[in-house]
Amino acid sequence: MLFNGGFMLLSSLVSYIYKDGVSLQIFLAGLATLFLGAIAMVFTKNHTKEMNKREGYIVVSFGWIIMSLSGTLPYVFTESIPSFTNAFFETMSGYTTTGASILNDIEAVPKGVLFWRSLTHWIGGMGIIVLAIAILPLLGIGGMQLFAAEAPGPNADKLHPRITDTAKRLWLIYFGYTAAETLLLSAAGMSFFDAINHALCTLSTGGFSTKNASVAYWNSQPIIQYIIILFMFLAGTNFVLSYFAFKGKVQKVINDEEFKLYFKFVAIFTIIAALIIYFRADVSASSVNHPMVWGEGESAFRHALFQVLAIITTTGFVTADYTMWTPFLVVFFFGLMFLGGSAGSTSGGVKVVRHLILIKNGFLEFKRTLHPSAILPVRYNKRAISGDIVFNILGFFILYMLSFIIGSLGFSILGIEFKSAIGLAASTLGNVGPALGDYGPINNYAPLPSLGKWWASFLMLIGRLELFTVLILFTPFFWRNR
Amino acid sequence: MLFNGGFMLLSSLVSYIYKDGVSLQIFLAGLATLFLGAIAMVFTKNHTKEMNKREGYIVVSFGWIIMSLSGTLPYVFTESIPSFTNAFFETMSGYTTTGASILNDIEAVPKGVLFWRSLTHWIGGMGIIVLAIAILPLLGIGGMQLFAAEAPGPNADKLHPRITDTAKRLWLIYFGYTAAETLLLSAAGMSFFDAINHALCTLSTGGFSTKNASVAYWNSQPIIQYIIILFMFLAGTNFVLSYFAFKGKVQKVINDEEFKLYFKFVAIFTIIAALIIYFRADVSASSVNHPMVWGEGESAFRHALFQVLAIITTTGFVTADYTMWTPFLVVFFFGLMFLGGSAGSTSGGVKVVRHLILIKNGFLEFKRTLHPSAILPVRYNKRAISGDIVFNILGFFILYMLSFIIGSLGFSILGIEFKSAIGLAASTLGNVGPALGDYGPINNYAPLPSLGKWWASFLMLIGRLELFTVLILFTPFFWRNR
Ligand SMILES: [K+]
Ligand SMILES: [K+]
Repeated sequence: MLFNGGFMLLSSLVSYIYKDGVSLQIFLAGLATLFLGAIAMVFTKNHTKEMNKREGYIVVSFGWIIMSLSGTLPYVFTESIPSFTNAFFETMSGYTTTGASILNDIEAVPKGVLFWRSLTHWIGGMGIIVLAIAILPLLGIGGMQLFAAEAPGPNADKLHPRITDTAKRLWLIYFGYTAAETLLLSAAGMSFFDAINHALCTLSTGGFSTKNASVAYWNSQPIIQYIIILFMFLAGTNFVLSYFAFKGKVQKVINDEEFKLYFKFVAIFTIIAALIIYFRADVSASSVNHPMVWGEGESAFRHALFQVLAIITTTGFVTADYTMWTPFLVVFFFGLMFLGGSAGSTSGGVKVVRHLILIKNGFLEFKRTLHPSAILPVRYNKRAISGDIVFNILGFFILYMLSFIIGSLGFSILGIEFKSAIGLAASTLGNVGPALGDYGPINNYAPLPSLGKWWASFLMLIGRLELFTVLILFTPFFWRNR
Repeated sequence: MLFNGGFMLLSSLVSYIYKDGVSLQIFLAGLATLFLGAIAMVFTKNHTKEMNKREGYIVVSFGWIIMSLSGTLPYVFTESIPSFTNAFFETMSGYTTTGASILNDIEAVPKGVLFWRSLTHWIGGMGIIVLAIAILPLLGIGGMQLFAAEAPGPNADKLHPRITDTAKRLWLIYFGYTAAETLLLSAAGMSFFDAINHALCTLSTGGFSTKNASVAYWNSQPIIQYIIILFMFLAGTNFVLSYFAFKGKVQKVINDEEFKLYFKFVAIFTIIAALIIYFRADVSASSVNHPMVWGEGESAFRHALFQVLAIITTTGFVTADYTMWTPFLVVFFFGLMFLGGSAGSTSGGVKVVRHLILIKNGFLEFKRTLHPSAILPVRYNKRAISGDIVFNILGFFILYMLSFIIGSLGFSILGIEFKSAIGLAASTLGNVGPALGDYGPINNYAPLPSLGKWWASFLMLIGRLELFTVLILFTPFFWRNR
C-alpha cells in the first residue's frame, strides 16, 4: 500500500511538472491523486509492515485497480476522454503496458495528456519490475521463483530488507535506458517530445505512440526504427541480465538459457518473416506507406524484425499491417502473441522461461514414456528444478489457455466475429496491444462495445498480474477460514 | 501385426459380401488386401509374440498407415476417387474416424464403395477400442493408464493373456449398439442401406454420411435425429461403462466421475446453445433447410443437442450450419472441438477424463500456491492419482496445443486464411470432421490443396494415436541405442 501511495505521489508530481499546454486540469488531477494517495498512506500507517500471502494477493490486485481508477483523472478533467469507460480502459491499457487505445485521433490530444498517457506505461513498467523481482515469487506465482533466485543480492526466502535495493538497481537501469533512447531518437531526428514519449513506451513494452500511424510514421527513417528495435530488444530482456552486463559479467548473460532462447526466437522468427515478406507478400496491399529507402531487402528485414520484436516483447508498436501480408503471417503473428519476452522484463505474455521449461519438460516426458523408471529432472541454468515448479509452470500455461478461450467467448458473445474475438483475447491477455481483424494493427479499440472494453480491461489486468494473483481471489477457498 | 492382418481379412471379407452394385472391383480390392495381409502374416510368424515398448510405437503407427494404404484400393479400383492423394485422405479420414470427405457428390458414388467408406470408420473404431484398452496404457500414453485400471478383468501390468477377452466383450457391445441403431433407424423410416451406414458411422464417432447434406437430410424427421443423438451419446461414453450397465452395475456408471462430467458438459453446453439459437440466431440465414415440424423451441433444442454432441463426441454429423448462427456460437463450437468424448470410447480430441484431471489439478494448484507445504494429490474416482500421471496429462495437453499451433501454421502456409486454417487444425487433430470458414459444416475438404490433404492426414493420424505414439518416432533419442 505504501508502495502504491508512492506511485501516486510520483505520477501527480510528474503531471504537475509537465503543465505545458492547457494543463491546469492535469495539475488538478495531480493534486486530487496526491490527496487520495495521502489518505491511503494514513490508512496504511496503522498496518504492520509484514503482510501474509492472502493480503499480498488482495493488495496487488486491488492496488492495480485503484491506481487505474486514479489514473483516469487527467483524461476526465481535461475532457480528452469524456467517457469514463474509455478513460478507464485507456488507463488500464497504460498501466498494464498493453498499449491498446480508444483514441481515434491521437495527434489532436493535448501534449500534456499524451505525456501522462505514456507515463502510465512507464509507471506500470516500474511496478512490473518490482512485482517480478520481489512480490510474485513470494506469492508463489508460476515459475517466478526460478528467476527471482537469479536476482542480484537477496535470497528468495527473506527478501524484505533488500527488496528496495534490488528494485532501485533495476529501476536505475530502466531509467538509464529510457534516457539513452530519448537522446538517440532525438539525435536521429525525432522531436524531443516524440522521442521521450516513445522511449517511455518502448522500455515499458507499452506501445502507445504519439502518432496515429504509430512508428509507421517514421517508415522513411530506418535509423529511428532501428533505435526502437534495439530498445525493444533490451526491454524484453531480463533487467537483471542488463545489470550483470553493466557489472562486466558478460559471461553470465551469454550463458543464460532464457536469454539464449529469447535471442533464438527473435532471430529465427525474423528470418522466416523476412523471407516471406520478401518473396511472397504484396506490400502495396496495405494502406500503410512503405518507402523502401534502403532497398527492398532491407525493408523486408526491418519490418520483419520490428514486428517480430514488437509482438514477442509485447510492445505492440507497428510499422506495417502484418495482417495484410500473407495468410501464413497472420497465423504466425497470432502464435507469437503467446510467446512473451523474458521474465524480469516489462513484457507480458507467457514468457520465454516458461516456454523453455515446457520444451525441456516435453522432451523429458517422451523419454519418461520410454523409460518410466528413470528420474529425469528438468534443468535450468545447470540446476535441477523441483517438480513443484515445473508443475506450477504447466498449470500456468493451462490456465493461460483457459483464460484465452473464456476471453474469446466473452468477446464473441458481444457479437464480435471469430477472428477479431480470438485476436482480442490473445492480445489483451498477453498485453500486446494490436489484435487481428477489426482490431488489427492499423485499427484501434474505439469500436469495441462498452462491455467489451471492461472485459478487455479485466483480461489485461489478469494477464499482467500473471493470472494466479487475480484469479485466486475468485476461488471460494480463498475467502474461507481467514 | 497379427492384429492388423486380422483387420485386413475382415475388411476384404465384408467388401466381398457386399458386391451389390458394380463391385467386381471391390472384390478384387478385397483379394489384393487379403493377399497383402497374408504376406504380412507370414512375415509376422517369425516374430515372437512379445514386443518391447519401442516396437509397440512403431507397429501401431506404421500399422495404421499400412492399413490406410491398403484401404485405398476399393476407391482406386472402382475409380470412385481416381486421385491417390484423395483416396488416401478419404481412407485415413475413415480409419481415424474423422469423417472429413473430399467427395463433392456423395450420392453419386456406388453403394458398395459408400459401404466400404462407412466400414473404414467402423474398423477404425474397433482398433481404437483395443488401443485404448490394451495397447496405449502399456505404452504409457498420457493418462490412459487411469482408465485401463478401470477396465473389467485384467490388471494393467500384465494384460497379455486377457487383452482379447476384454476387447471381445467391448466389441460385442460395439456390435450390439450398431445393430440396434440400424434397426431403430430403419423402423423410424430410413432405408436399410442408409440406416446401416449411419449406424456404422455413429458408433465409431466417424461422421461419414451417405447424403450430401449429412443428417440435415432428415431435418423433417426428428425421430431419426433423436435416435442418432442417443447413439452419439453412447458412442462418446466409455464402453467399459456400457459393459457395467449391461451387467447391472448401474451404480458404477452413475458414480464414474468422467461420465458425470461428460453428462454435465453435454447438458450445460446444449442449454447454452439452445437458448442462443432460440433467442438470437437467424436460422433462415443458413442454406440448410430447417422445417420446424415440432415447433421452434423443439427445433432449437434438437439442433443444439445434435451439434453439441456431434462436436463433443467428435462424430461430426451435421444437421445445421453452426457457423451461420451467431459469432458467439462459432467460437463456442470451435472451443468444443478441444473437449472430446470419454476415454475408452471411439471419440477423438483431448477426452473428458483429461479435462477432469486438469480442472481438479488447477484448483489444487491454487490451493498449493496458498499453502505450499500441503500435499494435495488429485483424486479420481476416489483414488489418489500419482503425480507422474498428472504430469503426463499436463504434458499431453501442452503437446496437443503445440500440435494445434503447428497444424494451423502448416495450413496457413498453403495460403489458407486464418479462420479456416485454425479450424482445420482443430478439426483434424480432434478427429471431428467439419471445420470452420471454407471448410465448415456444409462444405467439404475437396478444395484443399494436395499438400494440405497430406498435412490433414498426418494431423488426423497423430490426433487419433494420442500424439505421443507417433511423435515419439520423431525424437532423436528414440532411434538411438536400440
Ligand atoms: K504492449
Ligand atoms: K468424426
